[in-house]
Amino acid sequence: MNLKPLDHDYFMRRALTEAQAALAEGEVPVGAVVVAGDRIIARGHNRTQVLNDVTAHAEMQAITSAANHIGGKYLHDCTLYVTLEPCQMCGGALYWSQISKVVYGASDPKRGYSILGTQLHPKSEVITGVLADECGQLMDDFFKSKRR
Amino acid sequence: MNLKPLDHDYFMRRALTEAQAALAEGEVPVGAVVVAGDRIIARGHNRTQVLNDVTAHAEMQAITSAANHIGGKYLHDCTLYVTLEPCQMCGGALYWSQISKVVYGASDPKRGYSILGTQLHPKSEVITGVLADECGQLMDDFFKSKRR
Repeated sequence: MNLKPLDHDYFMRRALTEAQAALAEGEVPVGAVVVAGDRIIARGHNRTQVLNDVTAHAEMQAITSAANHIGGKYLHDCTLYVTLEPCQMCGGALYWSQISKVVYGASDPKRGYSILGTQLHPKSEVITGVLADECGQLMDDFFKSKRR
Repeated sequence: MNLKPLDHDYFMRRALTEAQAALAEGEVPVGAVVVAGDRIIARGHNRTQVLNDVTAHAEMQAITSAANHIGGKYLHDCTLYVTLEPCQMCGGALYWSQISKVVYGASDPKRGYSILGTQLHPKSEVITGVLADECGQLMDDFFKSKRR
């Protein structure tokens, strides 16, 4: 039997499943999971429309949920996987969380934290472009369907 | 009888009352209120320790609560009063909310949105320094007491 080790693609696929759940609710399809020691400890997807709340981004919900799971507010030794590059708000939340690693799929050249100069925590490692095409395609399809 | 019209000082005092509530819970003393048409529609104070959640800043709670009150996610024609300059996260949330006005008390030269270049919404007017000494003193006293 050939067991493939858990890798970035594996966890990004779980984040994509969350993004699909957002899509099914008519939301901008962004999904996230938080991983600690090869285990998913939190999930979240964009719910800004359903909750009438601009703060209800996938990452914010995953951060809150992960802290709840841990029983502490710092996400040391945790990795966030998110299908879209975090915005200023989510980047700012990640800063406060002191999360160890942030892995994202598609870049957001308009509202992404990197183009806008938002500071992540100096201890946070960042990995970009994981399943970027798939993550981005989901967004493109959503906005195309909205324009129709 | 001399009725003083409601002004920035008046609403900042309400935000200070929220900050005092945070202090009483052992939190960094930051408070906020959201005002629409001379009425306070939402209040919030920092609860990051109590909730074990880095996202539980005063502004975030006030934004979510105000949207809940309005029944829509945009805070057009609303003013946020907050005792401390918003951070990147809260600035990013304010951007998404398209709030009309942001009034803050003390500046935050380390983690404030303005020094870190966080973009607020282009339609948001910003007023600074309202009861700044009082708002700042509360913070200074808190951190001094922590160092003792």
